[in-house]
Amino acid sequence: MLLSERPGRTVSTRTVCARNGSVQSRADELATEEPLEVRVAYFEAGVERRRSVAVTMRTPGNDFELAAGFLYSEGVISGPEAVGQIAYCTDVDGPQMYNVVTVHLRPGGPFDPERLSRNVYTTSSCGVCGKASLELVRTVCPSRPVGDFRLRPEVLLRLPDTLVRAQPVFARTGGLHAAALFDGTGRLLLAREDVGRHNAMDKLIGALLLAGGLPASNTVVLVSGRASFELVQKAVLAGIPVLAAVGAPSSLAVELAREFGLTLIGFLRADRFNVYSGAERIEGLGEVPGKI
Amino acid sequence: MLLSERPGRTVSTRTVCARNGSVQSRADELATEEPLEVRVAYFEAGVERRRSVAVTMRTPGNDFELAAGFLYSEGVISGPEAVGQIAYCTDVDGPQMYNVVTVHLRPGGPFDPERLSRNVYTTSSCGVCGKASLELVRTVCPSRPVGDFRLRPEVLLRLPDTLVRAQPVFARTGGLHAAALFDGTGRLLLAREDVGRHNAMDKLIGALLLAGGLPASNTVVLVSGRASFELVQKAVLAGIPVLAAVGAPSSLAVELAREFGLTLIGFLRADRFNVYSGAERIEGLGEVPGKI
Repeated sequence: MLLSERPGRTVSTRTVCARNGSVQSRADELATEEPLEVRVAYFEAGVERRRSVAVTMRTPGNDFELAAGFLYSEGVISGPEAVGQIAYCTDVDGPQMYNVVTVHLRPGGPFDPERLSRNVYTTSSCGVCGKASLELVRTVCPSRPVGDFRLRPEVLLRLPDTLVRAQPVFARTGGLHAAALFDGTGRLLLAREDVGRHNAMDKLIGALLLAGGLPASNTVVLVSGRASFELVQKAVLAGIPVLAAVGAPSSLAVELAREFGLTLIGFLRADRFNVYSGAERIEGLGEVPGKI
Repeated sequence: MLLSERPGRTVSTRTVCARNGSVQSRADELATEEPLEVRVAYFEAGVERRRSVAVTMRTPGNDFELAAGFLYSEGVISGPEAVGQIAYCTDVDGPQMYNVVTVHLRPGGPFDPERLSRNVYTTSSCGVCGKASLELVRTVCPSRPVGDFRLRPEVLLRLPDTLVRAQPVFARTGGLHAAALFDGTGRLLLAREDVGRHNAMDKLIGALLLAGGLPASNTVVLVSGRASFELVQKAVLAGIPVLAAVGAPSSLAVELAREFGLTLIGFLRADRFNVYSGAERIEGLGEVPGKI
């Protein structure tokens, strides 16, 4: 069982390519998509309990970070001290073994078993998912992101190019989302990729969590797609003051960013960007009259 | 309460736009993102039961279709006869009232109450999500899509342009995904939009279901983004023989398409496309030697 082949980030295949009337068979690489089940093991009144909390379709790689980042984003854990061992499940057979990860929560660590129920509640058979999620952000982040982090517009404009160069699998497959963290000078600190954009962000946040790097107060995170409510929520929870997206933001993303004082940038390209919230963090933009 | 304002598909806002060194404040439109909770009401041993089965972040509009399409895709219902009334929940207060939809299932209709549990199982605290989903496809679709539906390459190449013209909200916000159904001549039959690509597909399939249009045997569906496992699964369940995506397919999307005989097209542009499965449905491509 331990010899099961671990799935890679890409899979080779063949495709029939039709272009301008000519047709040819050629080799192609696809971004791998596989389910990942996240389980937690924790102690309750001295008894170890195990629970499955989520399944997500993801690209293999950085699975432990993804599991940790997911638990953090959902409010199950609030710091690295809560996390003991993280491991693939050896009681699962064959090729599925690398698709199940168990996070062992430390006894007495900062985690909320109640949140486990609420989590299942919010992600599946809920009632008030959006509302519960909004309340989670309010609970965990009572105040606005603090500090005096500022960015120059020219630094912001360089980020997409840096991200593209940091996306090796995307370059080969065209099939991945990315999330990348930069410092205030535009230096790339960390980048993660996934078929799911929320997963790419959870991998990034999980990596920060496990390395003791949260809150990530003096950073900007760039995402390759659009800015959804959930991505804003994850950035706020991670204490990241600026979220920049290559695509458009949604209504709820802008609403949440304004409520929590996150700087939200949309349509970031080499020559332009739109600021939807927190313009004071972008130098020279805080003074635009009647601005947002 | 009945006077609650119903959320629109877009929301007006202001943004600070920085472009080539100039900065100006201007009006902007955002795609609306709001949670939708899907509930089912059904009879069990003569007693009416209600259950919340899912919450998804969606763009308001075609909510009843989305609810019906979701239940169909998850295997809870297998035909329009199973569906009675669909309504917004009047026991929910204020602005959330249009974010909760109840689907009343007909007594004796073709629906699977067991699937309700399995559904919650697969979408949240699962175990074998991907596996369960694959099994659902196998159960509902014992055989390959039937019929002799064929497409000419030049019809395929015209679809993206037709889709863009059919996406009014996307054109204004840049923030939506779309799913569009065409016949074999490239005529647009139906198009649906959403911030979530899976939701756009569920809206399309729900519309077909409610109109008695399933299986949609002689059609091709085009999606604006990438082709995931779940989109292939939904197309197979709806009996649609061809799925074309503007973006890349994932590994599991290709695997599932090949297993079920779906024709899967990726990177569809005005001058090119790749065929990953079922090339025999595209005229002139079935004979490429050593093809896929």
